[in-house]
Amino acid sequence: MKNHPKITLVGAGPGDPELITLKGIRALQQADVLLYDALANNELLDFAPAKSLKIYVGKRAGKHSLRQEEINELLVQSALEFGHAVRLKGGDPFVFGRGYEEVEYAREFGIPTEIVPGISSAVAVPSAVGVPLTHRNSSESFWVLTGTTKDEQLSEDLRLAAKSSATLVILMGVQKLRQIADLLCENGKADLPAMVVQHGTTPMERSVVGSVATIADLAEQAKIGTPGIIVIGEVVGLGNASQLTEIAIQSQRDNQYNNSTVQQ
Amino acid sequence: MKNHPKITLVGAGPGDPELITLKGIRALQQADVLLYDALANNELLDFAPAKSLKIYVGKRAGKHSLRQEEINELLVQSALEFGHAVRLKGGDPFVFGRGYEEVEYAREFGIPTEIVPGISSAVAVPSAVGVPLTHRNSSESFWVLTGTTKDEQLSEDLRLAAKSSATLVILMGVQKLRQIADLLCENGKADLPAMVVQHGTTPMERSVVGSVATIADLAEQAKIGTPGIIVIGEVVGLGNASQLTEIAIQSQRDNQYNNSTVQQ
Repeated sequence: MKNHPKITLVGAGPGDPELITLKGIRALQQADVLLYDALANNELLDFAPAKSLKIYVGKRAGKHSLRQEEINELLVQSALEFGHAVRLKGGDPFVFGRGYEEVEYAREFGIPTEIVPGISSAVAVPSAVGVPLTHRNSSESFWVLTGTTKDEQLSEDLRLAAKSSATLVILMGVQKLRQIADLLCENGKADLPAMVVQHGTTPMERSVVGSVATIADLAEQAKIGTPGIIVIGEVVGLGNASQLTEIAIQSQRDNQYNNSTVQQ
Repeated sequence: MKNHPKITLVGAGPGDPELITLKGIRALQQADVLLYDALANNELLDFAPAKSLKIYVGKRAGKHSLRQEEINELLVQSALEFGHAVRLKGGDPFVFGRGYEEVEYAREFGIPTEIVPGISSAVAVPSAVGVPLTHRNSSESFWVLTGTTKDEQLSEDLRLAAKSSATLVILMGVQKLRQIADLLCENGKADLPAMVVQHGTTPMERSVVGSVATIADLAEQAKIGTPGIIVIGEVVGLGNASQLTEIAIQSQRDNQYNNSTVQQ
């Protein structure tokens, strides 16, 4: 056992490896052991010392390779055995990342923890495609929700969100896109602009823009899947919307003529 | 006039200069001219080339040094005259940052624009003090609002937010803290945990933790002012809450015995 076990949770950002923070890089450089998940770009692993141990603990929707309890346990054991354990998580560790559960578990062992915030895709993906989450003339707030709750139901918060004028940003919701759109339609939001962005901030980025009424069909036609984020609100009609629409049309054309196009 | 005018909006992050992204640093390194505001840490200016022109265009609540229209104009003129104009903004450029207005204006002149997302204090400040915005057992969403709308009124969104179970993150709201707390109390939320963090992620960070019912008094006693963020929700009761309470008590003691304590 090392004298100074320590755990740092580092947010890897939304996908583009250059969207990690300087503080995150410095933590990686000081790692004795690195536990990383599937959402973080693998280029980031190179910041960790060559001699550090690198352990993949990734999860994908519907395909959990390690249970959260196992990750908690492995993280604590790694810190006790090797010293500084860095836990690299996609986005921000505390936004739908279950990072808090890891910190809570580490505290039971008296291991000091530090959080290095990361850029959440909820904020960065709309920004990077030119859609502002707030705009003085159309949206004074934004609400970040999950499409998939722990009991696999549509979040209760979505029902209230459907009545708000906030820009809605929905993570982990692409598989429930039609249900979400239906719920919004029932609340008179059929004509509100809506967008789905898959693999945002990476070279594989693809998007569709439409309205709440059309977005599920558009996403299906363009084969936009996970991981993706949904943005709903007047702000989607701003910015690169015309450019995004062209991309969507392009995507549909690609699919029409070449159904073998690989979605990485 | 330069042949290749270009504008990059860069998010400086929440305060800690190490919370800028690698991509943001690289944009700064390639700046011919840099326009920066008061929220960005001045250490970040050193990433720009020594020969680049650096122009302060900062605004502070209640003390606008340049109107937004003047900033738009200066940004475009800078790009036309010097080439690559980097606009460094606190947090994320598209979260309550009016960055979209700058992009929109630049487009009228046909100047290419790029957005480098930054870490919004809305996400980073709670994370950095150990408060998760979402937690599987207490909050499935978070709602980011502004306390101060463009017409200086309490945001209408706040009335609906008071009825939701989302974690509420309120930026630019410290001056309206008592009004906000009263509104939440009227909606039966008096006992919900609440926190105010001033100068989050910087060495001047100070916080108070209490309930919706007590937070305005606590903040007043501790002289917690702007710039600060308000977080309201069950998640505030998690994490470093006991530690934060100690800080709050410490702050109160400081104020009791030494009212001349300077808030930087």
